Amino acid sequence: MPDASVAVIGAGDYIGAAICQRFAREGYIVFAGRRDVARLAPLKDAICAKGGRCEALALDARKEDEVCAFLAAAEAAAPLAACIFNIGGNVRFALGQTSERVFRKVWEMGCYAGFLSGREAAKWMRPRGRGSIFFTGATASLRGQSGYVAFAAAKFGLRGVAQAMARELGPEGIHVAHLVIDAGVDTAFVRERIRMRGGDEAVAGLKPDQLMRPEAIAEVYWQLHTQPRDAWTFELDLRPYMEPW
Amino acid sequence: MPDASVAVIGAGDYIGAAICQRFAREGYIVFAGRRDVARLAPLKDAICAKGGRCEALALDARKEDEVCAFLAAAEAAAPLAACIFNIGGNVRFALGQTSERVFRKVWEMGCYAGFLSGREAAKWMRPRGRGSIFFTGATASLRGQSGYVAFAAAKFGLRGVAQAMARELGPEGIHVAHLVIDAGVDTAFVRERIRMRGGDEAVAGLKPDQLMRPEAIAEVYWQLHTQPRDAWTFELDLRPYMEPW
Amino acid sequence: MPDASVAVIGAGDYIGAAICQRFAREGYIVFAGRRDVARLAPLKDAICAKGGRCEALALDARKEDEVCAFLAAAEAAAPLAACIFNIGGNVRFALGQTSERVFRKVWEMGCYAGFLSGREAAKWMRPRGRGSIFFTGATASLRGQSGYVAFAAAKFGLRGVAQAMARELGPEGIHVAHLVIDAGVDTAFVRERIRMRGGDEAVAGLKPDQLMRPEAIAEVYWQLHTQPRDAWTFELDLRPYMEPW
Amino acid sequence: MPDASVAVIGAGDYIGAAICQRFAREGYIVFAGRRDVARLAPLKDAICAKGGRCEALALDARKEDEVCAFLAAAEAAAPLAACIFNIGGNVRFALGQTSERVFRKVWEMGCYAGFLSGREAAKWMRPRGRGSIFFTGATASLRGQSGYVAFAAAKFGLRGVAQAMARELGPEGIHVAHLVIDAGVDTAFVRERIRMRGGDEAVAGLKPDQLMRPEAIAEVYWQLHTQPRDAWTFELDLRPYMEPW
Repeated sequence: MPDASVAVIGAGDYIGAAICQRFAREGYIVFAGRRDVARLAPLKDAICAKGGRCEALALDARKEDEVCAFLAAAEAAAPLAACIFNIGGNVRFALGQTSERVFRKVWEMGCYAGFLSGREAAKWMRPRGRGSIFFTGATASLRGQSGYVAFAAAKFGLRGVAQAMARELGPEGIHVAHLVIDAGVDTAFVRERIRMRGGDEAVAGLKPDQLMRPEAIAEVYWQLHTQPRDAWTFELDLRPYMEPW
Repeated sequence: MPDASVAVIGAGDYIGAAICQRFAREGYIVFAGRRDVARLAPLKDAICAKGGRCEALALDARKEDEVCAFLAAAEAAAPLAACIFNIGGNVRFALGQTSERVFRKVWEMGCYAGFLSGREAAKWMRPRGRGSIFFTGATASLRGQSGYVAFAAAKFGLRGVAQAMARELGPEGIHVAHLVIDAGVDTAFVRERIRMRGGDEAVAGLKPDQLMRPEAIAEVYWQLHTQPRDAWTFELDLRPYMEPW
Repeated sequence: MPDASVAVIGAGDYIGAAICQRFAREGYIVFAGRRDVARLAPLKDAICAKGGRCEALALDARKEDEVCAFLAAAEAAAPLAACIFNIGGNVRFALGQTSERVFRKVWEMGCYAGFLSGREAAKWMRPRGRGSIFFTGATASLRGQSGYVAFAAAKFGLRGVAQAMARELGPEGIHVAHLVIDAGVDTAFVRERIRMRGGDEAVAGLKPDQLMRPEAIAEVYWQLHTQPRDAWTFELDLRPYMEPW
Repeated sequence: MPDASVAVIGAGDYIGAAICQRFAREGYIVFAGRRDVARLAPLKDAICAKGGRCEALALDARKEDEVCAFLAAAEAAAPLAACIFNIGGNVRFALGQTSERVFRKVWEMGCYAGFLSGREAAKWMRPRGRGSIFFTGATASLRGQSGYVAFAAAKFGLRGVAQAMARELGPEGIHVAHLVIDAGVDTAFVRERIRMRGGDEAVAGLKPDQLMRPEAIAEVYWQLHTQPRDAWTFELDLRPYMEPW
């Protein structure tokens, strides 16, 4: 068993939860953070049922002091080996309907919180000269689509954060990576969106493996974490075989 | 003389001022905004001396109401034909020294203010089905360098804003573009930085045309503004002939 | 009148011809090359009718000696100020139907000929420390689409050629640029393709300015050619206002 | 043991050999091809010594018939599960010294041979609806540097080939990926180059993990090959932790 903790910021029901489970399976002490801590109960139960260790904590990652406390708690439990920032915030608003409040909030969740998370994780990792800091990106990290001005601003910005951190922290032995999740993940939300557009038959007509399983994505985070430092990936994309791009 | 106004948000002493003068030369009523309105006096004088029209206004582009008022004032003077967002905010801070305040402030100036400017300009332009909204980018729009986590986050984000606006507004006849100014402009600031690194001889040793003249850059903004709508450029880069990249 | 020549390699009926006319208007001696010299007659006539000078020459740009002779002829007439490589070769073949002959031929036209043209033009320009070498790119320069393996290979390759030349020749005062023409140009070929897909009503339904006029594109080549060397563009894109991208 | 073969085209002493060994370890029948078949003997011996199976074949991948025969031989031994194209050809020539012969040859090795390999591998894989086709890229796949016009043309082109194949073959269940090896691999060639530039002390001064071990790179090929089809990576980069980029 490694004496190590992993902090997952934005431990949502899908990718975030799958990452938690993947690292728990390897013996890491998982610190799972999200705003609504009650919704973390099933994840914690699932991990504990398999003999893993998981702390589920309420976390608003837009608050500097909460991020600091969250990562300090992880470090106190065991040396922080990985910090994974996984907050999304995919919202669609036409430009004229994008209030300054929406724009700011989407950025605070998608970019600013990522900066705080990475900076604070690096503080603990630097003295040891190792650790992983990974950021979950999206199609909107590379393309600003119509109707996504707020989301694109946040996701582009997060990618800038990741690049600048990678170049500064890499030579110190800290692996920073950015994953572009470029298609639909198999979530209730995505299935509902498909239903709204195409009806029940659209959902029924989904081909096998047309949506990405969170576990398949989580595996890639794990592989990145275990890359030896002589061959690190900064960026990769992920999409299902039949996704047009 | 066109019955048209141009709003330059971030009308600094160099690129911003040169853009103002370029449009003034064509008869546009120039609305120049920057925080320290006193420093706009020379620009206004220079434009007026040549028979141009210029309104110099104090503007903190991070304030929604100020941006609205500024663009409304331009529109009131003459139909808003172009809005150019030119706020930089190039700062260098090591990751560990990047306070949340710095990170947020650099973003508010470099990205959030750009969003507000573009959204409000579009409001006036949409009913007419034409207008130009241009954003000044930098090397940091495309590369997150070590020591530039805040600046890269802002500049990447601004590029996301520009792309999303271009895709939404283009079909309505509004030309959105993003210019990547990928090298040193000939400013007192840049010359001082060169002096600090290499001494007086480094400044004396600058080759002809090694730094970009603001007028040369401003010419490109003008050319983009006059592109007919069947052949629009969204993005271009600008650097001196001898710049390594 | 400048004492200068411009060589247009791939002087097709549309973009190439428009570039020839744009430079002729400024007094440049135009050397227009294409394989089927007979089809250059209308262009030559049009230029001469306006008092311009044009040499129409048969040129297979895949032949090193022909490229050398073509550019030497231009230089002999007047110092070679610009060389514009404009050969397309947009072909669609499913992967399984892409014979090695097709793949090679598309590359010879779209990439290899561009290399030869740029290298030979640089020979004449280097001693003078100035000149423009421009390459016409396409959507396929940036995206390899299904069915375009040969075209993408050629166009990606040409962009690599342009970048490497820009970095080597820039510091010597030679301006290398790459233009991404990212949509349909208003040509008989494109209109026919639209007709084949959507019938006559599709052509009739084309909105104003939905296709790019060659003259609008040619203007951008001219603007790039006249950029002062302290502010050069290496790459820009061009598409009509209503083009999805 | 899988009943499967893997074809490695460009089975050089380092990355290519490590890929062969990685797949051999999993029980794949390895078909290793390179021009100088004699130099494959140590690889074959090493694989066989560990109980693996390896066919070492002379292959000039610029010859269509040789590529066809090579892949047919692999398929005949066991269903072709993966085809890895790993021919490099990194050469540096100033533009003026880049003969048409060099330019063509570098392209034939680096791009054209990749097209042939991918197209022929796809032929065997399509009826089964699965298989992996991977291409080894380099820094020059993304940046055309001064002095690398031939290499950049080939590597950019190969990336175009990979993208077009990925978009066409992905929906049929064939995983096409492109790996950007963005730094020095630990080879005798690279060490010699370091020695030539900085002397023996430069080699002695290499920090631990400063060069990439071929085995670390090969592991990533294996991971890509085992990605489930609901979460495929098309592109990733690889570089050592302390590499500037």
